[in-house]
Amino acid sequence: MTTEVPEVSGGRRRPGRRPGAADTRGEILAAARKVFAEKGFDKATIRGIAREAGVDPALVHHYFDSKEGVFVAAMRLPTDPSAVLPLILSGPREEVGERLVRFVLTMTADPAAREPLLGMVRTAMVNEQAVGMVREFFTTAVLGRVAEALDVPPLRMEAAFAQLFGVVMTRYILRFEPLASADIEEIVALLGPTVQRYLAG
Amino acid sequence: MTTEVPEVSGGRRRPGRRPGAADTRGEILAAARKVFAEKGFDKATIRGIAREAGVDPALVHHYFDSKEGVFVAAMRLPTDPSAVLPLILSGPREEVGERLVRFVLTMTADPAAREPLLGMVRTAMVNEQAVGMVREFFTTAVLGRVAEALDVPPLRMEAAFAQLFGVVMTRYILRFEPLASADIEEIVALLGPTVQRYLAG
Repeated sequence: MTTEVPEVSGGRRRPGRRPGAADTRGEILAAARKVFAEKGFDKATIRGIAREAGVDPALVHHYFDSKEGVFVAAMRLPTDPSAVLPLILSGPREEVGERLVRFVLTMTADPAAREPLLGMVRTAMVNEQAVGMVREFFTTAVLGRVAEALDVPPLRMEAAFAQLFGVVMTRYILRFEPLASADIEEIVALLGPTVQRYLAG
Repeated sequence: MTTEVPEVSGGRRRPGRRPGAADTRGEILAAARKVFAEKGFDKATIRGIAREAGVDPALVHHYFDSKEGVFVAAMRLPTDPSAVLPLILSGPREEVGERLVRFVLTMTADPAAREPLLGMVRTAMVNEQAVGMVREFFTTAVLGRVAEALDVPPLRMEAAFAQLFGVVMTRYILRFEPLASADIEEIVALLGPTVQRYLAG
């Protein structure tokens, strides 16, 4: 009987040498975090991330599909906006505000989904590189997508974002009561009409 | 002719020895920051701050009038809510939302007023003691005061706060465009009805 030796890889391997190896995905994500921090979301490219990781760009596409997919995985975000937004935006237009508020509150109610988001915001509060990255990701991949689908002017989109961002911060970081303990549907009833009005354009 | 020697005080003096000395005010503020951080806003007292500073409580009253006054000075906040809120709340009730949005945006447009506020929020984002202090100050000295004057339920007050807090964060920390460069009156026109609706009770 042979003693099983756990495979100890990671650590010192130079990137790019074994593109199919077990931690290639992790190496791509580490490279992506570096590239996004340095270039921001808009200027980062799959090709540049692949170069940094020393792998073929096709491999990055294979693992993550798109630049947004790489970003979401690299920042450990709970959902890919390109997957979830079409669902939220496709229902009745007169309830889209309500659906957006409910989605944001339901997603952030789960600590495993919330913490990476709050971590990203915390970093952005004190780090200029991070703030640029977060700004570009939200404006391009989230707000820009909603604005285009619903034909909403950017300032109105940002007013809606500010309301939703503010409520997540006040509920989960500042933890004002009764907001921190309020039922999601109670907050939806209060904020839904606000977001609806902004998105009415 | 005698050579003038500038008075070098500060430094190592034990607190409380010379209550009328030039830096007593600074010593009170240093003591206040310590007491507020440890006890939060609600449980801190003028008496406790005076004890920490080694001065008579009457001296704290003399310099800062109230516990709120000490907090505002200690955190270098731009305005004392107990002075400014009555002015905002005393105008026509149907325009109070607009006045609140305009006040928050006008105050935070000045970097000298904005930076201590943002600094306090940045600290609160990463520090549990600070978050407790900020939460208690806002809920007691700001939201509680507005809620009482206008008879607004706390959850609606907090929804209004979330909108205003979110817009300041999005404009000045995340710096989304066009919000970051928008005219104050353009934002007032957009957000005023939101805050008005929340405060309508």
